[in-house]
Amino acid sequence: MAGNTIGVLFRVSTWGESHGPATGAVIDGCPPKIDLEESDIQKDLDRRRPGRRPSASARSEPDRVRILSGTFEGKTTGTPISLVIENRDARSNAYEDLRDVFRPGHGDISYQSKYGIRDHRGGGRASGRETAARVAAGAVAKKVIGRQGIEIIGYTLEIGGISSRRFSEREIGRNSLCCPDAEAAGRMEAALRQAKSEGDSLGGIVEIRVRGCPAGLGEPVFDRIDADLAGALMSIGTVKAVEVGAGLQAARMKGSRCNDPITAEGFLTNHAGGILAGITTGAEIILRAACKPIPSIEKEQQTVDVRGRPMTVTVRGRHDVAVIPRIIPVCEAMVAIVLADHMMRQQAAGQ
Amino acid sequence: MAGNTIGVLFRVSTWGESHGPATGAVIDGCPPKIDLEESDIQKDLDRRRPGRRPSASARSEPDRVRILSGTFEGKTTGTPISLVIENRDARSNAYEDLRDVFRPGHGDISYQSKYGIRDHRGGGRASGRETAARVAAGAVAKKVIGRQGIEIIGYTLEIGGISSRRFSEREIGRNSLCCPDAEAAGRMEAALRQAKSEGDSLGGIVEIRVRGCPAGLGEPVFDRIDADLAGALMSIGTVKAVEVGAGLQAARMKGSRCNDPITAEGFLTNHAGGILAGITTGAEIILRAACKPIPSIEKEQQTVDVRGRPMTVTVRGRHDVAVIPRIIPVCEAMVAIVLADHMMRQQAAGQ
Amino acid sequence: MAGNTIGVLFRVSTWGESHGPATGAVIDGCPPKIDLEESDIQKDLDRRRPGRRPSASARSEPDRVRILSGTFEGKTTGTPISLVIENRDARSNAYEDLRDVFRPGHGDISYQSKYGIRDHRGGGRASGRETAARVAAGAVAKKVIGRQGIEIIGYTLEIGGISSRRFSEREIGRNSLCCPDAEAAGRMEAALRQAKSEGDSLGGIVEIRVRGCPAGLGEPVFDRIDADLAGALMSIGTVKAVEVGAGLQAARMKGSRCNDPITAEGFLTNHAGGILAGITTGAEIILRAACKPIPSIEKEQQTVDVRGRPMTVTVRGRHDVAVIPRIIPVCEAMVAIVLADHMMRQQAAGQ
Amino acid sequence: MAGNTIGVLFRVSTWGESHGPATGAVIDGCPPKIDLEESDIQKDLDRRRPGRRPSASARSEPDRVRILSGTFEGKTTGTPISLVIENRDARSNAYEDLRDVFRPGHGDISYQSKYGIRDHRGGGRASGRETAARVAAGAVAKKVIGRQGIEIIGYTLEIGGISSRRFSEREIGRNSLCCPDAEAAGRMEAALRQAKSEGDSLGGIVEIRVRGCPAGLGEPVFDRIDADLAGALMSIGTVKAVEVGAGLQAARMKGSRCNDPITAEGFLTNHAGGILAGITTGAEIILRAACKPIPSIEKEQQTVDVRGRPMTVTVRGRHDVAVIPRIIPVCEAMVAIVLADHMMRQQAAGQ
Repeated sequence: MAGNTIGVLFRVSTWGESHGPATGAVIDGCPPKIDLEESDIQKDLDRRRPGRRPSASARSEPDRVRILSGTFEGKTTGTPISLVIENRDARSNAYEDLRDVFRPGHGDISYQSKYGIRDHRGGGRASGRETAARVAAGAVAKKVIGRQGIEIIGYTLEIGGISSRRFSEREIGRNSLCCPDAEAAGRMEAALRQAKSEGDSLGGIVEIRVRGCPAGLGEPVFDRIDADLAGALMSIGTVKAVEVGAGLQAARMKGSRCNDPITAEGFLTNHAGGILAGITTGAEIILRAACKPIPSIEKEQQTVDVRGRPMTVTVRGRHDVAVIPRIIPVCEAMVAIVLADHMMRQQAAGQ
Repeated sequence: MAGNTIGVLFRVSTWGESHGPATGAVIDGCPPKIDLEESDIQKDLDRRRPGRRPSASARSEPDRVRILSGTFEGKTTGTPISLVIENRDARSNAYEDLRDVFRPGHGDISYQSKYGIRDHRGGGRASGRETAARVAAGAVAKKVIGRQGIEIIGYTLEIGGISSRRFSEREIGRNSLCCPDAEAAGRMEAALRQAKSEGDSLGGIVEIRVRGCPAGLGEPVFDRIDADLAGALMSIGTVKAVEVGAGLQAARMKGSRCNDPITAEGFLTNHAGGILAGITTGAEIILRAACKPIPSIEKEQQTVDVRGRPMTVTVRGRHDVAVIPRIIPVCEAMVAIVLADHMMRQQAAGQ
Repeated sequence: MAGNTIGVLFRVSTWGESHGPATGAVIDGCPPKIDLEESDIQKDLDRRRPGRRPSASARSEPDRVRILSGTFEGKTTGTPISLVIENRDARSNAYEDLRDVFRPGHGDISYQSKYGIRDHRGGGRASGRETAARVAAGAVAKKVIGRQGIEIIGYTLEIGGISSRRFSEREIGRNSLCCPDAEAAGRMEAALRQAKSEGDSLGGIVEIRVRGCPAGLGEPVFDRIDADLAGALMSIGTVKAVEVGAGLQAARMKGSRCNDPITAEGFLTNHAGGILAGITTGAEIILRAACKPIPSIEKEQQTVDVRGRPMTVTVRGRHDVAVIPRIIPVCEAMVAIVLADHMMRQQAAGQ
Repeated sequence: MAGNTIGVLFRVSTWGESHGPATGAVIDGCPPKIDLEESDIQKDLDRRRPGRRPSASARSEPDRVRILSGTFEGKTTGTPISLVIENRDARSNAYEDLRDVFRPGHGDISYQSKYGIRDHRGGGRASGRETAARVAAGAVAKKVIGRQGIEIIGYTLEIGGISSRRFSEREIGRNSLCCPDAEAAGRMEAALRQAKSEGDSLGGIVEIRVRGCPAGLGEPVFDRIDADLAGALMSIGTVKAVEVGAGLQAARMKGSRCNDPITAEGFLTNHAGGILAGITTGAEIILRAACKPIPSIEKEQQTVDVRGRPMTVTVRGRHDVAVIPRIIPVCEAMVAIVLADHMMRQQAAGQ
């Protein structure tokens, strides 16, 4: 049991169901005397909101965060920070006919197996809505690591099999898909429109880079920072694969190529993705999270109900066509939380 | 700090450096009254030993395990099981000229950054030798989950870019590369011989399947079983990417294809890899771990020493050409440890 | 850092400052399908409220709890239960002149040392108000262990040096001090009135008995159940000593008297307090928590301010004269939380 | 399950049964570059050995510790430190007739309830022998906190109801009972001789003082340092009560007396025992642990066997008459481990 907490020293616990009164996070272990206002958090939450993108759902989620504890006169006090986001505009009735149905690709069937009871409304705890709390907590983590000059940027590497071919950091903020390649972004949008018209959905790949991370973060042997980062990214419902540095391609390289040559100025290549033996080297950390297509689709699907009776289902409601780009701040949040935790663990040695 | 322990209820801690007197594991939380002899563990340790394969190192590691606590008259007692493997045949002198050198692709440089001190002999704590303790602990985990009928099989999916094309389970035990495709195995062996002759090394991909796993294992939202499995596999030094089910390919599917249709008899496909919303469904669990090539190569490489002075290095010693197949029992061990832990967590609800 | 969470499987995290917008608890790991309404929790919260007792403060705290997650149609779902209690009637201005003053016996000075910042209003996180969240979480824990027939009763053993001499369980609910000895209760009330008139405060001892606890709860060697219970009780701000069974008196017994003789029907005495080698025996668990007098007194006291300048302070505000009996449900809550956690840990072995 | 580990960052796990091949500890999280030799540990282990005192058992336990990992050229490396102590001179046959008998005051009956199996030889895991591993780990913790000038001294406050009346620190090292009052020590020895002649045993109280502890250690609200210290001391099998500062007496004081007045030079009294709101103040930490008499006595006792059949038992073997003074280094070790952990947790904030 338990399992809704991540971190050793910078600990984040989230709670909340999709259609309950609210969702939230408690951050225990945030260092004191860090400037923190609700607006610092709101910024990232707004990035998670559905926009005018072709991939967006029609559900309007204001996601207004409140800080209920842990700050005093605009600064953290070192005590737990409680963040709450009320759930508004949740039309539970839309889910009433799904009460006893297992939607394919969703956690309905596995939650039922596990608990023998579930809040079916909007996926309950297994809903993507839960990630709002992660983003809120991640915004606090970003402030913690930001003090040390660590910066995280996430962007769209691929959607529906269409890849970014070039990397313009400025471009990321310019197109609605957060794609560093404007041309690819255009083709991705077309693919999303096409999928939407088919009542279908698309997957994709998010890439995350971490800059300014000091060498020495990560612990042998199970709490390696790549292990913790992989676990954190894989804990996002939509993620089915995680890569570090060269990732899968490393398996196809020879050692003489994969090993990054070391010079007095740093590494000549970065196949390691900034991590050696589970510990950061000071080079840029590079991570990729592969996201499956959103399981809620309007196309008819074959399934069973709670009693095992065969049936078909078409999931209407207001759903995105792809989790990207909304999942990007979630990925960033998970990375920020892991880094904040490991930064503090490393400081604990008091050197 | 800390980080050498994995698990919440079935907790495994490992210790030991490559060229210290011994390496070992302590398992805390193993249920009582399970039959356990040293030979149960030795079996898996022997699978990790270098063999006569072209990929093998010449170092002969007997890896004899001793159980120092936690069993009584051949059965576990519920108290911590201490496993110790003496390090023999460790020729530390071979490493003396590497004392101040950072080998590319190794943890030398990151450990130095982290701790400001390191046991350079054979990689110290960052050595692959550490995985012997994991395998030993994993053998105990296998006994725990075996009581519930859970079975794990790992095998070689790819080496040096050469893929298994067919799956014959019987074949896995027949060739020295543990490859389910005899023909591919032959080509892999040739590639390994070629790399060896070049003083180079190869990477590859291990696939792990779990059968008989009950539905309901895994905890929302951070301790999802796929998150824990991914973290556990990524904690193996050589692993740079982890996939669950369709993995990276899921990012290129449409929802209508990726979603596994549900019938009264189970799922029609298994793109989910046996896990939905982080909780097992009862279907086969499918995982893949992509391993980078072994960084120790005889080819000359560019690097620096502890003082930052440029130099070249050629790593002689007795090294494997690829971590596969020796890494397979390590992957299995990590999976077994995670499953044993989650099995116990699920039982805790007492339903 | 961190430290606001207790438990391994039944995990309780609390948050909130005395004069912030709210205080609350998140319970992660509560088994599913347990009936749970806000009224179940409100009952215990109401026992913590100040009453018409001579020991009571004039602050009226309605302490209305809301369940924000983790239940569905009146039953727990196995996901985190978020409990929130708004802080009303908190007159922060009353504390403005204490902003820079360290009140003797309070955490003002230690929090300032630790964090370099603190919410001075009403003691901030160190306030007794924080225990409301514990009581709320404890009420849930009581439901969990109640299913197994475990029952906890706490009562007043001593106030201001006046001891209960006899034990009438019915009497506990009859007098406002929750004292099992009506005659002693009368003398305690007189002592409280006297202390109040002097602008002073009193301490006392709470005794807690646990009935129906199965044998076998508790883990060797650090997570013994007596260790966890002692830690949990000592984590209440006011507690300065904890005893199990014969407690301090055990140190003055001979072995032949202290050892509880065992018969087929159970133990003939209970000096062990229901725990042997850190594991429950099935006998009644007996615990005592010694509470110091409330540090907020109207009498003038010698102290310094944040800059170390000597001064005197008289703490006005609305304070109790003694933490007893209000602390009793807090002690019960801590015991319930520890027992729920250990009950689940024992079930995890799946025997 | 699990439970043989203590600490968050400075983590100590122990393993081993009284009559197994060895007992040991793994320390994960020890900072690097601390001088550490086996002799540093041996010193404390030797203090735990039975001596020529009237309270001593005749069993001669050499308790030779070996460091198997985590140091390199005489310094810690930051990786896990594995300590092993072989069990020699363990005469298991002496216990053969106790195989099915529950010794009163021992964990025999509770272990049997919990696990359904137990290593009966010498108490197995519940034996006092387990504390050797704690002492070994505590010696390492002392080195960690010693770097910051923290010093721990434990001594005998009371044995068999005879109290130390005066405190001469020099005297502690001079008499075999580690009693700061020579005259009391003499009377304690007489009492021990008397108890021995009666085939009985005595309890007593250990007091521990911590000097040089910086202000600011301890975490709200559950991991208060007094909570962790109380839990750690109560986890020693023999301890039935723990006091901090004024302890039980605080319950009988008025607030005006119990509150320690604060001056620019520090506190005028120390009823708080150096801890306010669970956080150290910089004043001396004062703790007391009340130990029950050793349960192994030669006097005939009433009990049952595993099948519930009534019988009598006389425990022969080689037992101490009192755990004091051998338990003193164990108490010190537990305090040192908790302080090392909290010191590192406080450093983690990186201020």
